[in-house]
Amino acid sequence: PDLESGTAAVARQNQLTKPRGSLGRLEELAQWMATWQGKHPPELRRPRVSVFAGNHGIAARGVSAYPSEVTAQMVQNFIDGGGAVNQLAEAADADLRVYELDLDHPTRDFTTGPAMSEEGCARSMAYGMMAVEQGLHLICLGEMGIANTTSAAALCAALFGGDPADWVGPGTGVDASGIAIKVETVAAGLAANPTASTDPLEALRCLGGYELAAIAGAIAAARMARTPVVLDGYACTAAAAVLWRMDSRALDHCVIAHRSAEPGHARLIEKLGMRPLFDFGMRLGEGSGAALAIPILKAAVECHTGMATFDEAGVSGQAASPTPGQLH
Amino acid sequence: PDLESGTAAVARQNQLTKPRGSLGRLEELAQWMATWQGKHPPELRRPRVSVFAGNHGIAARGVSAYPSEVTAQMVQNFIDGGGAVNQLAEAADADLRVYELDLDHPTRDFTTGPAMSEEGCARSMAYGMMAVEQGLHLICLGEMGIANTTSAAALCAALFGGDPADWVGPGTGVDASGIAIKVETVAAGLAANPTASTDPLEALRCLGGYELAAIAGAIAAARMARTPVVLDGYACTAAAAVLWRMDSRALDHCVIAHRSAEPGHARLIEKLGMRPLFDFGMRLGEGSGAALAIPILKAAVECHTGMATFDEAGVSGQAASPTPGQLH
Repeated sequence: PDLESGTAAVARQNQLTKPRGSLGRLEELAQWMATWQGKHPPELRRPRVSVFAGNHGIAARGVSAYPSEVTAQMVQNFIDGGGAVNQLAEAADADLRVYELDLDHPTRDFTTGPAMSEEGCARSMAYGMMAVEQGLHLICLGEMGIANTTSAAALCAALFGGDPADWVGPGTGVDASGIAIKVETVAAGLAANPTASTDPLEALRCLGGYELAAIAGAIAAARMARTPVVLDGYACTAAAAVLWRMDSRALDHCVIAHRSAEPGHARLIEKLGMRPLFDFGMRLGEGSGAALAIPILKAAVECHTGMATFDEAGVSGQAASPTPGQLH
Repeated sequence: PDLESGTAAVARQNQLTKPRGSLGRLEELAQWMATWQGKHPPELRRPRVSVFAGNHGIAARGVSAYPSEVTAQMVQNFIDGGGAVNQLAEAADADLRVYELDLDHPTRDFTTGPAMSEEGCARSMAYGMMAVEQGLHLICLGEMGIANTTSAAALCAALFGGDPADWVGPGTGVDASGIAIKVETVAAGLAANPTASTDPLEALRCLGGYELAAIAGAIAAARMARTPVVLDGYACTAAAAVLWRMDSRALDHCVIAHRSAEPGHARLIEKLGMRPLFDFGMRLGEGSGAALAIPILKAAVECHTGMATFDEAGVSGQAASPTPGQLH
């Protein structure tokens, strides 16, 4: 973090034609952007949305309302411009990149052992790291992977403890029997992977997925590249939580765009002590919530850089407080 | 309201390539836009931000941290492009209009009788109505008026009852002694205007201001012009509450952009039973929060109109639920 740039942002905020602090979260966001871009004023002309797609062995167990083929079909839909994230990225004037992680080869069903080999997990993290280029002003992360809310639930249970049922929700829209299958799957995954609770990266390897490993890698690389990060929903935040479990400052360069309708997300956000921007009941994934944050961050930067100062505008400052009692 | 267009919006939502309801509030907003624009699909190419400015006699009592001259100075700042709302309107590609309501002649100090004559109040409402043109796809309303959070507090106390202190807050940033002056001013205003609690329009005339009357007029005219409305913070919502007090459906064509840091706003929003989009601790007024909602509404419309359907994209639908028990 570049605290000098953050301090310069605060100094400028206090000269702009508004009561101090009256832009609330927008002022915090401008300061945060300056701090993590390492420059003042912060910029937001080059935002990117990066969506990572992977398939999960546990999908065969009926944990999702959709079949596994939908992961690849939705990737094609993104390429064709038909997904929600396409519209949101375009509306925000952001560059959209979609990364497929070997969709024909899902992870192993983690109820029978680790989802990924050490090499497979490390390779996916490296792939995510390489997706971060120099010179981006912001990166929004998202995922596509049928069954990955179950993987997220297992990951959270390994990282933070608690009952599997605490972390499981309807995902794409399963009914009570589908939720029961998800809970059983998470419990079986924890039982089959006793090393998962010993180390955050081991939890990622045993219970995560290729797209989640890539997201963890991208978050770490973005910090080094001085690129602030916007996290999306439950699966994306679960991947981020792996890093947080290793170092509770590891996500200081990230904001969470929204609180998802998936109940585990609210619980996870509370563990991380983060404050989402929106609470819109979204639960789509694919970076949709994260992309929606771009215009808010742009607004924060535009107000910060474009507003006049009191001096420039010839606007009177705050009246001296008429409290003679304070003089003695 | 055009319920047919709203129903058409829901029918389309359910065919788009996402689990039903997974875009949450964005789906509701697209349906709401269609319903109040009276057409499907809804459009948002022509958003406008309209800011009304007026001066208040009670400003001379020291209810604000800023002198009354700041209203006109800020209007000049808006004309020069230096305000927060300028940056926010530009970032959202919205047309910004600023309307001055005779700033050299403030309302009467309402602790000595009605703030406005009947003619003055009616003329301001008509002025606000005329600010709504045909063909706008959305109108965001805002205000500028030193001392108007005190006017808003008095208006809310007359419309909804409660102690003056319940409705008063720091506004632009007054300290405890300033808040005490505001509470006294509201109490004196209620005492000096016994007719204010008999009728919502009378409350507006006695305790409101020219810019607040104009906002009430603009909201009513927008409904007739089939233009959905975005409300801003405390003063703007208090003006809207006058209409709600006359008919609890009068604001169905409006959304509240954000919950302001001004404590009376949260209380007022609860009375109106509305759900703000953001909770960003903003308290600037001038339509800043309302303008910030434009990109969210655009995102809702873009997803609604631009996404592919399951059929178009060749994406598999939801798997049949494997529950044979439901067959009998």
